[in-house]
Amino acid sequence: MHSNLNKWSAEFIGTFWLTFGGCGSAVLAAAFPEVGIGWAGVALAFGLTVLTGAYALGPISGGHFNPAVSLGLVVGGRFKAAELPGYVIAQVLGAVAAAALLYCIATGKPGASIGGFATNGYGAASPAGYGLVSALIIEVVLTAVFLIVILGATAKHAAAGFGGLAIGLCLTLIHLISIPVTNTSVNPARSTGPALFGPGIALDQLWLFWVAPLVGAAIGALIYRCLLARNDEA
Amino acid sequence: MHSNLNKWSAEFIGTFWLTFGGCGSAVLAAAFPEVGIGWAGVALAFGLTVLTGAYALGPISGGHFNPAVSLGLVVGGRFKAAELPGYVIAQVLGAVAAAALLYCIATGKPGASIGGFATNGYGAASPAGYGLVSALIIEVVLTAVFLIVILGATAKHAAAGFGGLAIGLCLTLIHLISIPVTNTSVNPARSTGPALFGPGIALDQLWLFWVAPLVGAAIGALIYRCLLARNDEA
Amino acid sequence: MHSNLNKWSAEFIGTFWLTFGGCGSAVLAAAFPEVGIGWAGVALAFGLTVLTGAYALGPISGGHFNPAVSLGLVVGGRFKAAELPGYVIAQVLGAVAAAALLYCIATGKPGASIGGFATNGYGAASPAGYGLVSALIIEVVLTAVFLIVILGATAKHAAAGFGGLAIGLCLTLIHLISIPVTNTSVNPARSTGPALFGPGIALDQLWLFWVAPLVGAAIGALIYRCLLARNDEA
Amino acid sequence: MHSNLNKWSAEFIGTFWLTFGGCGSAVLAAAFPEVGIGWAGVALAFGLTVLTGAYALGPISGGHFNPAVSLGLVVGGRFKAAELPGYVIAQVLGAVAAAALLYCIATGKPGASIGGFATNGYGAASPAGYGLVSALIIEVVLTAVFLIVILGATAKHAAAGFGGLAIGLCLTLIHLISIPVTNTSVNPARSTGPALFGPGIALDQLWLFWVAPLVGAAIGALIYRCLLARNDEA
Repeated sequence: MHSNLNKWSAEFIGTFWLTFGGCGSAVLAAAFPEVGIGWAGVALAFGLTVLTGAYALGPISGGHFNPAVSLGLVVGGRFKAAELPGYVIAQVLGAVAAAALLYCIATGKPGASIGGFATNGYGAASPAGYGLVSALIIEVVLTAVFLIVILGATAKHAAAGFGGLAIGLCLTLIHLISIPVTNTSVNPARSTGPALFGPGIALDQLWLFWVAPLVGAAIGALIYRCLLARNDEA
Repeated sequence: MHSNLNKWSAEFIGTFWLTFGGCGSAVLAAAFPEVGIGWAGVALAFGLTVLTGAYALGPISGGHFNPAVSLGLVVGGRFKAAELPGYVIAQVLGAVAAAALLYCIATGKPGASIGGFATNGYGAASPAGYGLVSALIIEVVLTAVFLIVILGATAKHAAAGFGGLAIGLCLTLIHLISIPVTNTSVNPARSTGPALFGPGIALDQLWLFWVAPLVGAAIGALIYRCLLARNDEA
Repeated sequence: MHSNLNKWSAEFIGTFWLTFGGCGSAVLAAAFPEVGIGWAGVALAFGLTVLTGAYALGPISGGHFNPAVSLGLVVGGRFKAAELPGYVIAQVLGAVAAAALLYCIATGKPGASIGGFATNGYGAASPAGYGLVSALIIEVVLTAVFLIVILGATAKHAAAGFGGLAIGLCLTLIHLISIPVTNTSVNPARSTGPALFGPGIALDQLWLFWVAPLVGAAIGALIYRCLLARNDEA
Repeated sequence: MHSNLNKWSAEFIGTFWLTFGGCGSAVLAAAFPEVGIGWAGVALAFGLTVLTGAYALGPISGGHFNPAVSLGLVVGGRFKAAELPGYVIAQVLGAVAAAALLYCIATGKPGASIGGFATNGYGAASPAGYGLVSALIIEVVLTAVFLIVILGATAKHAAAGFGGLAIGLCLTLIHLISIPVTNTSVNPARSTGPALFGPGIALDQLWLFWVAPLVGAAIGALIYRCLLARNDEA
């Protein structure tokens, strides 16, 4: 067994990595003229933070790196509710540390502008101008499917070892779909970090990126338990 | 054993995910100026829907998510014909639900235009203007190879666990080749969902995206059985 | 054991798939305005033809799909020289069939132009104008490393099952480097198919794309045997 | 056991491949008009050099290909300090050989310009103009996380076989984030090779790309040992 310190450290580092790597690629590299990585590169970066974190840290903490995932795993019967507070605190602290460090780096050149700083938003703060309803629907739906993929790909009958691959690339897929709508959250910790350093509207809209992912994760976990799990599964 | 409800739910959700994720990335994110994901991003998204669905839901239903795959597996001796109707109905319903939800999201901004809504087509409806014959050939050939990959990568002698990776990335590859020709179907359910909400020409041409993938899948399965399978294989 | 018919069919289909998929993505989808897949998409497509072919057909024929690979495996002591002629004939026929079919599809629209038809070349026929010496060096070096990766990733001590992943993605990597120089061959069969249908210069220069990959493959296999293999390895 | 010649050869070839493939894709293919692979393609190329090298050569030498990785593995208790000099010499020689060969190829066309020749830099030599402090921070942080991923993904409790995938794609991720800042090193050998052939400023700034990755690797290994490893782990 790993200790609580091991687990909290793993969740802190993993969520730091998710936020630093995903948001870092967006802030530093996405829109550079001609050779920038674009949204496809950002989508790949977010997914690879989870893929790498899952293989490196998953055996220690389970590799959640996301309060919505932790909640969904509680609803899905795979994680103890009593462990939730410690995990969520470690995750949020990791994301805030990542955003602070990214802020230092991104402002380290003459005439630097952090732009939206990879914050999530809807309406005026949506990359393509999508409204509140579109944002709510897509964050709920994508987090729900994310949890179904997580619960299915780590079930006892699943192919051993491939969970990290499927879950990481699922986050890439989620970003390929939804960056234009909300800049993609599905992760309240990832939304919170940059919101502390970015444009003020991000904090005003932060509630949606806690509510929608948490609701979506619970729905996904319930769908898995009610419709997909065998009678003899937890 | 999973129940029929488990299986149909898995096929519904998996085909929902394939259509929502693949077509969603195309409708929402492909052509955004400067940072849009382009056809390569859409190709990756379609493949990752199947990769993630295969690892999460494959152990439940086999992870077809496509009437042509289900038919090809019957021809290839890996799936019972009696199960075909239930699977195909679940697949089509999943794709229609995905298209409906995507329509709600995509129209949720001022001045929204759904464009082709990721429908499949030929001639005037082909992204690059390819005619009926090119469309027929490429859909038949790509679905045939898709089935060969599926049957080979899930054969008894195949590397355990890697089927979902090979099959998902095969769908990415198929899209990298053929989006300019037909917007890529190889999946009648995926074609049907968006056709109900997109431009009228999509419904007129929908027949081809049932006929060609089903014919191609049967051809691919026959090639596998006649030329590739060992005598002692099913 | 699979029969010779099984093996030759697998090599025919696999090389068909490599040429149809790789060259097809280049001819049909690479340079489409705004959303085209570019050389990175073509590189991914070539690699995924081998990745998917390796998992589906590798257990049948070994999954060479390339005369240089077959030769290198003979030099490396992993394949019988007596089997070489049958394999190479099947590979070349598969590539020619793929190019013929691709020609039919690509010309199936008003005002179609096949351009370079994904042929390989140097000097005037190099995508970025690189000369004969650069072309020779890069094709020799990349095929040599390709064989080292193939021999290493399929050695007895290698991680089981991951060979197809490493080898397929190695071909993607090879294309990411060298498309500007020669349009990337490292495979005489893949070069021969399109050369029969493309601009005349491709046939004139075809010799280099037989000589350099074959020489490079032999060098790579010798390096593996002399410097990397353990004493107790074949 | 493999001999020292086997190991040094594997480290030479692997670091050659990392530098030739990664820097080669950057120099030859990144900025080609319309179809160039961009920074996302370069990021993929660097990662795939390590992924392919890890599966092919990892069983021989451990697959470090990077003096910072070798040092970090010493600090992490996974590699003997006595083996460090041989490994680092082989790595640097491999990178220099790769840069020399790449120089020959890249200059093999009329009017060739090698530009920055994929060298690393800060300030005036940073692709996007980031200063010394940003460069130092990002190189230290990314190398630290790289070592955490390496140590975690190859720990005894980690999923067998997936280490090469996670570590290779981690290097892709690192490049997706940091090419704009320093052109991404995290590897002193990779920085040294091109610096010998590129613009003079690269040699002046080379010290940073030895200091920062080595310091970062040591920090990452210490974090792993102190916070993440179980009591019963090395």
